[in-house]
Amino acid sequence: MVDLKCTADFCLIPMGTETASISKYIAEVQVLIRSSGLKYSMHSAGTTVEGPWDKVMELIGKAHELIHSLGVSRVQSDIRVGTRIDKVQSFTDKVDAVEKILKEKDEAAGKS
Amino acid sequence: MVDLKCTADFCLIPMGTETASISKYIAEVQVLIRSSGLKYSMHSAGTTVEGPWDKVMELIGKAHELIHSLGVSRVQSDIRVGTRIDKVQSFTDKVDAVEKILKEKDEAAGKS
Amino acid sequence: MVDLKCTADFCLIPMGTETASISKYIAEVQVLIRSSGLKYSMHSAGTTVEGPWDKVMELIGKAHELIHSLGVSRVQSDIRVGTRIDKVQSFTDKVDAVEKILKEKDEAAGKS
Amino acid sequence: MVDLKCTADFCLIPMGTETASISKYIAEVQVLIRSSGLKYSMHSAGTTVEGPWDKVMELIGKAHELIHSLGVSRVQSDIRVGTRIDKVQSFTDKVDAVEKILKEKDEAAGKS
Repeated sequence: MVDLKCTADFCLIPMGTETASISKYIAEVQVLIRSSGLKYSMHSAGTTVEGPWDKVMELIGKAHELIHSLGVSRVQSDIRVGTRIDKVQSFTDKVDAVEKILKEKDEAAGKS
Repeated sequence: MVDLKCTADFCLIPMGTETASISKYIAEVQVLIRSSGLKYSMHSAGTTVEGPWDKVMELIGKAHELIHSLGVSRVQSDIRVGTRIDKVQSFTDKVDAVEKILKEKDEAAGKS
Repeated sequence: MVDLKCTADFCLIPMGTETASISKYIAEVQVLIRSSGLKYSMHSAGTTVEGPWDKVMELIGKAHELIHSLGVSRVQSDIRVGTRIDKVQSFTDKVDAVEKILKEKDEAAGKS
Repeated sequence: MVDLKCTADFCLIPMGTETASISKYIAEVQVLIRSSGLKYSMHSAGTTVEGPWDKVMELIGKAHELIHSLGVSRVQSDIRVGTRIDKVQSFTDKVDAVEKILKEKDEAAGKS
């Protein structure tokens, strides 16, 4: 069991589908994620999920199972997963930290 | 030369840095991206950039060079890059396509 | 629980380490993987592991825990994970399938 | 132009193909890589290529173009790319460095 908190960003690709459009599969995965209770955010290149390692990885595994159950024989995901023990940081804090620095740089440059 | 249009989502990691916090480096990369003229969007797990293959990959390479110039001896990126020739689609369209399906599902379920 | 068999290739990066060299950490992870009993193969850009989804993901999570226990406060991994239900295929079979085709192409071209 | 030397490991996925088997496409990509003159190594989860940034990224872009030319309308790759300026290191050296440590650990444990 791994209880470590993680942030995982995953991009799931159904393979051997009839067409190259996969939005209907991604929508099904979004419904699954929404029902998980974990904090998440979808963007154009994947979905970021935050929570205990086991829960997050189980969710991504269940997403694979779901796509298989819809008739897709092969599924590939790319997962970027990070853990840190020096401080508690939500994935939303990361963008805030960068944007704060950018704002300060702009102000210093007299842009604001 | 590769002129094919692509969408690349990259997550850059400076290695061997003094602390585990890398937001100051990511902010420098954002300034570089902003100056490139390419369409982009930052999220908590990376930045999505869209444009001709060569331009996009050159930009990510220049981001590595920039981080090296700040005294970091090793830089690692994960890039998810997609190309498609059946239709013109911006990365913002992808999220719209999924959200449209989700909205229809919600409406069909009487949630809206 | 996810019992689906998967093949996961992961590249683990300790962040905020004293130097940019991480081979001592990767060696510790290899010892952990070796003790797991799962089928695996190390290459220069990561390690491929094969087994039930839960076991494989737990192993990668334990690798993060191990690196944290060695004093590294932040760890990032990139995981490429695939599942397929149309046939049983080990990761070693995939290279064999490609090399078989390459050999046939070479023979057809009179190179062998 | 980016002349920085890099090591890139990429996993290319043709999307919307008739079947879930993609070995024939991967074989075509291998022929392309072989003709590039760059140092490379195929493994079960991708191919590692080493060389100047521009040359390596152009090669991966040409691999996308090649797959499109075979009738596949959408191609997705995951690329792990690293650069370092503190020392010259080939991707083959990385495995050697880890295996050297593992051997020393085994010897210290009286296993050899």
